[in-house]
Amino acid sequence: MSAVQASDVFELLRDGRPWTRAQLAQTTGLARSTVAARIDELLRLGLVAPSGGISTGGRPPSLFAMNPRAGVVAGVDVGATHVALVLADLGGELLVSEETALDVAEGPDAVLGWVCDAIDRLLRQLPLPVPPLRAVGIGLPGPVEHSTGRPTNPPIMPGWDRVDVPGLVQRRHPVPVLIDNDVNIMALGEQQVAYPSTEDLVFVKVATGIGAGIISGGALQRGAQGTAGDLGHVRVAGHEEVLCRCGNVACLEAVAAGPALAATLRASGVAAEDTQDVVDLARAGDLTAVQVVRQAGRDLGEVLATLVNLVNPSVLVIGGRLASAGEHLLAGIREVVYQRSLPLATEHLLVAPTRVGRSAAVRGAVAMAVTHVLSPEQIELGVRMLAEG
Amino acid sequence: MSAVQASDVFELLRDGRPWTRAQLAQTTGLARSTVAARIDELLRLGLVAPSGGISTGGRPPSLFAMNPRAGVVAGVDVGATHVALVLADLGGELLVSEETALDVAEGPDAVLGWVCDAIDRLLRQLPLPVPPLRAVGIGLPGPVEHSTGRPTNPPIMPGWDRVDVPGLVQRRHPVPVLIDNDVNIMALGEQQVAYPSTEDLVFVKVATGIGAGIISGGALQRGAQGTAGDLGHVRVAGHEEVLCRCGNVACLEAVAAGPALAATLRASGVAAEDTQDVVDLARAGDLTAVQVVRQAGRDLGEVLATLVNLVNPSVLVIGGRLASAGEHLLAGIREVVYQRSLPLATEHLLVAPTRVGRSAAVRGAVAMAVTHVLSPEQIELGVRMLAEG
Repeated sequence: MSAVQASDVFELLRDGRPWTRAQLAQTTGLARSTVAARIDELLRLGLVAPSGGISTGGRPPSLFAMNPRAGVVAGVDVGATHVALVLADLGGELLVSEETALDVAEGPDAVLGWVCDAIDRLLRQLPLPVPPLRAVGIGLPGPVEHSTGRPTNPPIMPGWDRVDVPGLVQRRHPVPVLIDNDVNIMALGEQQVAYPSTEDLVFVKVATGIGAGIISGGALQRGAQGTAGDLGHVRVAGHEEVLCRCGNVACLEAVAAGPALAATLRASGVAAEDTQDVVDLARAGDLTAVQVVRQAGRDLGEVLATLVNLVNPSVLVIGGRLASAGEHLLAGIREVVYQRSLPLATEHLLVAPTRVGRSAAVRGAVAMAVTHVLSPEQIELGVRMLAEG
Repeated sequence: MSAVQASDVFELLRDGRPWTRAQLAQTTGLARSTVAARIDELLRLGLVAPSGGISTGGRPPSLFAMNPRAGVVAGVDVGATHVALVLADLGGELLVSEETALDVAEGPDAVLGWVCDAIDRLLRQLPLPVPPLRAVGIGLPGPVEHSTGRPTNPPIMPGWDRVDVPGLVQRRHPVPVLIDNDVNIMALGEQQVAYPSTEDLVFVKVATGIGAGIISGGALQRGAQGTAGDLGHVRVAGHEEVLCRCGNVACLEAVAAGPALAATLRASGVAAEDTQDVVDLARAGDLTAVQVVRQAGRDLGEVLATLVNLVNPSVLVIGGRLASAGEHLLAGIREVVYQRSLPLATEHLLVAPTRVGRSAAVRGAVAMAVTHVLSPEQIELGVRMLAEG
């Protein structure tokens, strides 16, 4: 540690229970004057509020607790063809939400314009007094440089390459804007809601594309360039004849993602345009579709077996649109993962469909935004801005 | 934070510079009495010592700094056929070392007996006064449950399965004993010595077996069961006819590790008994050996391309005995990794031979032991033991 700061005192108050100044001083070993100054800063930032008994006769309040209604954050899930948005308080509780059909290929102005409008609309729906918007978390369907919030060569996002997404949102909402790719925030959302005590969880999204969000040792692993978890272009044995749009052959995405399965069905004379058609056919029991989905599960299993050996998660979650094609996909995945992964790595491994479902992404975006707002760095920044008036 | 503890004050003192009590109080915001109490604890633990000017007339010392000679740790590298051991101070500086040829298959009593004897011998070589032994770090050539220090089904370590390695060492040296598998500590050692500012480094060991130690986001990733980084039994495309001792087919280890290459050479009429023969032949320019090593590099490259996509390291280090077969192995690896990995993930990727070489393992074992000794938990444990007399 360096100096004892407001954020250090706040860490104690995050337990939600009320504390007195004397308890804080005793627990931390801080000088009473230091505690008083830090509490004063947190009160002025609104992150802490007087708690419990009514203050009478002008006496200063004696009990303090974290104030989850000190602000709201927006959690945004930008998909290939939809955008979903929620507002949540600083305790992560969802307050209001909105969703629309919108193609990401319409570009950043159209998509982020809708996002900024929707934030305004939803803020107006909140009961008075409306808490301030403190941060926005956004998941995008492509590779993102997390530190700058810029997409990098996103294949299904024409017009978005290297665009300053936080800057565009901040013109309308001048608050911190955090960006990550969709599958990373789905992993965060699934963990927060369904597996809060799990430190090693991998979320695999199987839809138009294929990707994974890797939480290892309790932390989301983004890698050096933010591309960690990119499964889509791993080579799958036995498919050397399949060309991928990336220029390589036998990439997992070209073999097992929704469009590839639809094409396979069409080649067998079954009418299937897109991923949803494949899902509908498999759920309706079309034998060809069931076989195609099952084989996609096995091909996914080949790559996921490697992932299990390399990362050794305790939970492997399968989500994305294709995961709703019933048990066939999961059965194929399990078949190969349990055959090919190390016995030690699968002994306690849970392979499960997403429990959080479609809201995993907005839940994760909220978690990313709240974590930022309540981080020591942000609290100290707020304190310095107070001091500078 | 909870209470301000001795370990918090120690964090400041680890910078190696001398501090006064007043500076510590001012920087931390702690009460003067708290700082004085914490410094007193650290002095009694020996981790901090008076620094600078001579104390005269019985006045208490006024400057304090971390004392790297407050103790030594042992770093131990147990290989398949050798054991290496060093003693280092708490600053990580190597003091003395010893090495012996010893087969790990001789079992835990023989190997750990030698380790305990060697620690005694090396302690006697240190100048007086000999600092106390504070911890032992050991790398073992097989899967280890890091939390308990027990090997789990280690294939080349008969007699070691589920053995309480820390308990056996502690009969002779009653200090904390940390165990990890060899390639994890090699990754730690390589990072500490050659890439101290790199947060995403993977160390691949290619020898009798094949494995990887993964440092991601600055932390060693062990996974849920401690098996993260196990590359050896990932399937390599195009080798479905190769049986592995694990019962599967086409495992990387059965295709590209030292014994597999020696067997391939023998089948071509070249006399090669083991990994070292393969290395010697390749270095001598034997054309068949060069071709076999190059192909092993390509097969490794297939699996490492997947690892690069999944983990996105900035440095991929190739070590282990087979890595000393000249540039042929690395050339084969680079050939496939740059062809098959995502352009974004390889744009800034360094694929390099180990710079630390054979001492990476003992260096990493020292780092693991020092990190433990200087951890807040250990310091607080020491303080509580002082208080209980």
